[in-house]
Amino acid sequence: MTFPTSARINGSRLWSTIDRSAEIGKGRPGGLARLALTDSDKEMRDVFVEWCEDAGLTVTVDKVGSIFGRRKGREGDQPPVMIGSHLDTQANGGRFDGILGVLTGLELVRTLNDLNYTTRRPIEIVNWTNEEGSRFSPAMVAAGAFAGVYEVDWVLDRPGDDGTVLGEELKRIGYAGEAPVGGRPVDAYFEFHVEQGPVLDEKKILIGVVTGAMHATGILVEFKGETAHTGPWPMERRKNALLAGCRLLDAVDQIGWDHAYGGRGTAAHLLAWPNKPGIISDWARCVVDVRHEDVATERVMAERMRRAVPVAAARSACEGEILDTWTWGGPIFDEELNKVFREYADQFGHSHMDMLSVSGHDSYFMARHCPSCMMFVPSRDGITHNNSELTVQEEAEPGANVFLHSVVARADR
Amino acid sequence: MTFPTSARINGSRLWSTIDRSAEIGKGRPGGLARLALTDSDKEMRDVFVEWCEDAGLTVTVDKVGSIFGRRKGREGDQPPVMIGSHLDTQANGGRFDGILGVLTGLELVRTLNDLNYTTRRPIEIVNWTNEEGSRFSPAMVAAGAFAGVYEVDWVLDRPGDDGTVLGEELKRIGYAGEAPVGGRPVDAYFEFHVEQGPVLDEKKILIGVVTGAMHATGILVEFKGETAHTGPWPMERRKNALLAGCRLLDAVDQIGWDHAYGGRGTAAHLLAWPNKPGIISDWARCVVDVRHEDVATERVMAERMRRAVPVAAARSACEGEILDTWTWGGPIFDEELNKVFREYADQFGHSHMDMLSVSGHDSYFMARHCPSCMMFVPSRDGITHNNSELTVQEEAEPGANVFLHSVVARADR
Repeated sequence: MTFPTSARINGSRLWSTIDRSAEIGKGRPGGLARLALTDSDKEMRDVFVEWCEDAGLTVTVDKVGSIFGRRKGREGDQPPVMIGSHLDTQANGGRFDGILGVLTGLELVRTLNDLNYTTRRPIEIVNWTNEEGSRFSPAMVAAGAFAGVYEVDWVLDRPGDDGTVLGEELKRIGYAGEAPVGGRPVDAYFEFHVEQGPVLDEKKILIGVVTGAMHATGILVEFKGETAHTGPWPMERRKNALLAGCRLLDAVDQIGWDHAYGGRGTAAHLLAWPNKPGIISDWARCVVDVRHEDVATERVMAERMRRAVPVAAARSACEGEILDTWTWGGPIFDEELNKVFREYADQFGHSHMDMLSVSGHDSYFMARHCPSCMMFVPSRDGITHNNSELTVQEEAEPGANVFLHSVVARADR
Repeated sequence: MTFPTSARINGSRLWSTIDRSAEIGKGRPGGLARLALTDSDKEMRDVFVEWCEDAGLTVTVDKVGSIFGRRKGREGDQPPVMIGSHLDTQANGGRFDGILGVLTGLELVRTLNDLNYTTRRPIEIVNWTNEEGSRFSPAMVAAGAFAGVYEVDWVLDRPGDDGTVLGEELKRIGYAGEAPVGGRPVDAYFEFHVEQGPVLDEKKILIGVVTGAMHATGILVEFKGETAHTGPWPMERRKNALLAGCRLLDAVDQIGWDHAYGGRGTAAHLLAWPNKPGIISDWARCVVDVRHEDVATERVMAERMRRAVPVAAARSACEGEILDTWTWGGPIFDEELNKVFREYADQFGHSHMDMLSVSGHDSYFMARHCPSCMMFVPSRDGITHNNSELTVQEEAEPGANVFLHSVVARADR
């Protein structure tokens, strides 16, 4: 039996699962605030596991809480083709970011069930823990651990901004699984995602074939100063760590503007202690990053950003230290897999274009583990990490069908 | 019976009460973190009430939780002379700020008891609720309510940074009293305090006669932007409220430097939401202030600060609004009371100087209600709002004795 060219996913079934997900952990109108390992994340996980089991999948949960739903292949001992994304959201998150990818994987399995079609290799769908990093920093830790980049114990020890610890929250919600994390071959990794940018929507193109990631460098910075009274303490003796943080954020935004055509500089996270009106803060922590489509420009921006740390510290009479640096970017995705995306898109008559991803995704880590690829579908006006995030069924379904055939072609290879 | 000129407080008894207080709500080594209406504040209040009762004082608690310990006068219906300060501290607070004032009031009463001396007017010692404003903003609300500047219900509704509410926390720790707030005459208000600045220590002068407050203006500012993804969202569409806050803080610090000789600009408080690495914040709140010994300069600084709000907002494509403004300063303290301080200091041979207070104090509000005065004693190196805050017994005791005689002279008037 060959897979019928006429096979299509059930778009309204896919959309009804998205609507169901959008009821769990509601945030601002239309959006979600389903932060990793909260009660609402647990509720969504429970529903997802039920959906997987109803679709005949064998569910396992690994030690960092990622949920895998496995559909047998005709040759059971082959490494699986994996489809993944995440069901957690930002504090003012949309209802598609990550979710569309996981539930399109589920819809793909349901479609194969409807057709009673079994691929040669197993297919696994996966919900990665804490992709957003909105409660436990950094983001994408579970995929990173699966790919062997992070140690499992380190992931479990990640502190939450609310005084919790990732591993304890996993236990609390019943998703501290037994399965080992990674350490097993995967034939190929596929991720389906909303673009989270305005390009496809502006150009009226339905499918983005993601060739790689925009070059990016992020740093976690700590400043140390001295507490003092905000009144009598003279200007020349102040060591205001909060102010050092403010200056770094301002500098990184300026770097973004200096390279705005093709680039970004992001100043989104600043904590300080005690951070009260009557006392100067002696501690601050910031996360800042720069991104650019051109690697040489990104390197220059990153160097400016790093050098802005001692400048911001010195201007505020504080000490500044870069505690962590991360970088990604380049043509990390598999050209052979992308070629298949393009061929099916052409065959079905759907517009497509090659593009870079600017956001981080679990696929960035999986690309270090096995041949990987990503497909983007349009985001209305590029709005994301916002309750107004919108992708409509008729603009997602063509991509989902190309995705279906591409996954099956790989799984039958 | 006239009050004996030889009367002196018991310095070692005063210091032992300070040491006892320094055991309750310990913070960093040597310091305190006894935030208003926390469990440790309750513990300190309980101990203070016990000390008051042991000294024969009649204790009442008003509706905003301020604790009054009243010692009868020879003519019971006379308005009292009041001695007050606060037992709450900053998150990295010292063990003298506020505390020395309340416990010197207690020591004064104990000294009168030892001498079996009764003043003509009653003497009341008071511990004002939430002077620091380190948990519930703004500061000095209870003295403000006593003086009729704030409504009682408004004070009780003040939200804490930790999601609590002032009035509920008062009930929780058992200090939501029955006594009406203010509305009664006070003959004079006295406050004894560590300088919280380096002047007395540098000049080796033992007593600061506080003639008034440095001119100051503070503002509470809110910025509104839009959440978006920190990756794909282009620079020219970002509305980063956190960044607007950073820019206001930077601007106010610059204003402080521009007028550093005699002035300060303070940038100590900045909150944002969601304030996470992956998402741009759509909300920020800052508190900033400027202070200067010259009123005209302070007015210029304040105007620059207010105008920095729309500039910071515009540069970050946000909306900015000043939600609240407070101002203080000028020769608010009573010259007749200050004259008595100077006379006793001269009589006892203790060095003294007139000075302005740069910090805010409960006395600023009481000065609107009745003749008020403050005395400062040296703070080592001016360090305060810091666990290294230090005032030594031999540098506090001379001031405390001048304070004793000045209070008694007023109470016998």
